[in-house]
Amino acid sequence: MIAIVQPEALSTRREKEAGTPAQQRSVSEIIASVRSEGDAALRRWTSRFDRAELSSLDVAAEEIEEAYRQVSPGFIQSLQHAARRIRRYHEQQRRQSWMETEEDGTILGQLIRPLETVGVYVPGGRAAYPSSVLMNVLPAAVAGVSRIVITTPPQSDGKVHPSTLVAAREAGVKRIVKVGGAQAIAALAYGTESVPRVDKIVGPGNIYVALAKRWVYGRVDIDMIAGPSEIVVVADRTADHRYVAADLLSQAEHDPMASAVLITPSRSLAEKTAREIEVQCRRLERAEIAAQSIREHGAITLVRDLEEAVETANRLAPEHLELIVEKPWNWVGRVKNAGALFLGPYSPEPVGDYVAGPNHVLPTNGTARFFSPLGVDDFIKKTSLISYSRQALIQDGNHVITLAEAEGLTGHAASIRARLGEEGKKDE
Amino acid sequence: MIAIVQPEALSTRREKEAGTPAQQRSVSEIIASVRSEGDAALRRWTSRFDRAELSSLDVAAEEIEEAYRQVSPGFIQSLQHAARRIRRYHEQQRRQSWMETEEDGTILGQLIRPLETVGVYVPGGRAAYPSSVLMNVLPAAVAGVSRIVITTPPQSDGKVHPSTLVAAREAGVKRIVKVGGAQAIAALAYGTESVPRVDKIVGPGNIYVALAKRWVYGRVDIDMIAGPSEIVVVADRTADHRYVAADLLSQAEHDPMASAVLITPSRSLAEKTAREIEVQCRRLERAEIAAQSIREHGAITLVRDLEEAVETANRLAPEHLELIVEKPWNWVGRVKNAGALFLGPYSPEPVGDYVAGPNHVLPTNGTARFFSPLGVDDFIKKTSLISYSRQALIQDGNHVITLAEAEGLTGHAASIRARLGEEGKKDE
Repeated sequence: MIAIVQPEALSTRREKEAGTPAQQRSVSEIIASVRSEGDAALRRWTSRFDRAELSSLDVAAEEIEEAYRQVSPGFIQSLQHAARRIRRYHEQQRRQSWMETEEDGTILGQLIRPLETVGVYVPGGRAAYPSSVLMNVLPAAVAGVSRIVITTPPQSDGKVHPSTLVAAREAGVKRIVKVGGAQAIAALAYGTESVPRVDKIVGPGNIYVALAKRWVYGRVDIDMIAGPSEIVVVADRTADHRYVAADLLSQAEHDPMASAVLITPSRSLAEKTAREIEVQCRRLERAEIAAQSIREHGAITLVRDLEEAVETANRLAPEHLELIVEKPWNWVGRVKNAGALFLGPYSPEPVGDYVAGPNHVLPTNGTARFFSPLGVDDFIKKTSLISYSRQALIQDGNHVITLAEAEGLTGHAASIRARLGEEGKKDE
Repeated sequence: MIAIVQPEALSTRREKEAGTPAQQRSVSEIIASVRSEGDAALRRWTSRFDRAELSSLDVAAEEIEEAYRQVSPGFIQSLQHAARRIRRYHEQQRRQSWMETEEDGTILGQLIRPLETVGVYVPGGRAAYPSSVLMNVLPAAVAGVSRIVITTPPQSDGKVHPSTLVAAREAGVKRIVKVGGAQAIAALAYGTESVPRVDKIVGPGNIYVALAKRWVYGRVDIDMIAGPSEIVVVADRTADHRYVAADLLSQAEHDPMASAVLITPSRSLAEKTAREIEVQCRRLERAEIAAQSIREHGAITLVRDLEEAVETANRLAPEHLELIVEKPWNWVGRVKNAGALFLGPYSPEPVGDYVAGPNHVLPTNGTARFFSPLGVDDFIKKTSLISYSRQALIQDGNHVITLAEAEGLTGHAASIRARLGEEGKKDE
């Protein structure tokens, strides 16, 4: 069922959804209405798309308390364990403002401050992904963002999935608004009576959410538009084929468009893994999705050696890269492009999805060549700081004048001359 | 000539250019042709748009030597001085990969590596902006990018402005390709015989360049699309009105769309500055541009006190913010949104454009709320590293299983069970 292909034929790149013209028109209409009518438009779209009639858009404290009674104590404990580890990892990403001083009195620096307000979009629908709430909220919280608001579409009974509410509370979110789709993105970008205008919007969503995010980009910041999930497993003959098969399937079950690839120099491992995938796939709840993904986007590639394996992985620049090889640390320096790197037999990708600590929001579709995991850096902004002394300006002023005049910008030169020349002497 | 307005009426936000449908079609045609025909398409478009017939697209070593003879020794010295300071400042932005170890053997980390290949677009046309070459190239070089290629449109005689070539060489760039417009962006995104495919494209350009960058975004990374320049000067009665007027004009001369705003509690400073702008403006080479900018986008605002001044500046989130006040350091903590902050009377904005060290590529159009100056961070990528020990997996495995099953992802749970359960024991 899984294809055996040549390394050159491997590609994990899938075309991104651009949205149909009808979808784009619809998103543009929704955004315009939210901009001009605020909450009234939010209620109207929520009634139409989610079939929910809401008295209040805000999730009330009692709803969160009720949610805690609806989930199991074990779930809460696991969520808290995950939150602790995610918070601790992201705390290592925090950075300090810095400055350097020069003897003439000049001070240069870089201020690092958190964004003030962030919106996290949480998809609704049949399944809930509380881990995604933690992974999107906690880096912002660790960065020091003071206002984090979640928007999520309500079910038709006006409620939000309890595990979403519990995850939001565990992540420290105080404000959850029941609105989804393009209307939620518009509300976060422009602000309404119930939804504060934010500086940045993160979190996954359907095509309408993605189109709306692209639309408001520049007025607010947005995160990467995530593509379907991918895993590349590089394994040698020391790898257990059951581990490898299970890990490939754990990506495949996400989405028929997900891509799972094994690269190995071991023909025996390749054959055993191919058979094992068949066996394990049947046991999955989402067996059909996984089977389709494996059939259409799965592959096993035989390579000469691990060197070729790692080179091939670099070319694919996968979201997740597992190295199930005898000496995984020997290869870390050779890995150039990967969102997250999992070393050895006891680091299956799902550990990274939930509890390890690093973020599970990762660059997809070959973009690990230049994009990075979501993290604290995504919720800060920098400001350059320049405090020149009079002495430094005298010293550097002529260089500024020379370069400004070479660029034809005499006003730039004049601003230096005003301070240096005769006319620059203060007359008060 | 400069308007005196109420603080509430101030806005530096200008609508961004979306491009006409004809421009978009043209860009899409150009990109498709470069993708399919490579260098042949580049030559064709260069002949058509730049009226240049080129034997080689590459700038030859002799052309660079010739350029050094065409510029003045003083210019070279000033450029070298600027390059030194810019490099030194950006070296402070370098970051290390890190890891943390746990007693059970688990290792988590974050790898930080430079992008491999970066393309810097340098506009052609009548003026050349060598400072922009330094500001776009040096952060990439400091980040450790090993291949940096410049593309720039040739003049009709097939040459490139000498100051661009000298700046490129001083910044250490080895490869300069004579191609501009959307065709250059397409070449950088897809690669041709003469132009390597890059991971990221930075640098300013006209509307065709901007549209093409947006088009290829996702296949490669791009920088922010820059809007017209802005300055906000917050000044009190201790400020010299001639400095203030000169600094406002230094932004205004960039572009009729540039915005220059003075916010002050001193009526006397406001009035003197308004008059002084008239006087100084006439002396500029680009007096007409500056006058139009001041007329259409300039403003002076009287506020109660410096507190209101800084609050107003925060709302505007300007690209450049000067604090020409008695105790500028007292206000640094209050400034929330600014691309670059200039403190005191001897830190005119042009110092930051050329020699201070911090980057002059800054967030415009109110985006300093969430965007940052160009810097080393823009040329690195991060990879999360997860190496779990068997003991840690035993400890955390059940949490993964609980959370995965709560999300309906039984394949994720199975990948843990394969390692923990009976069936997980290795049979080799």
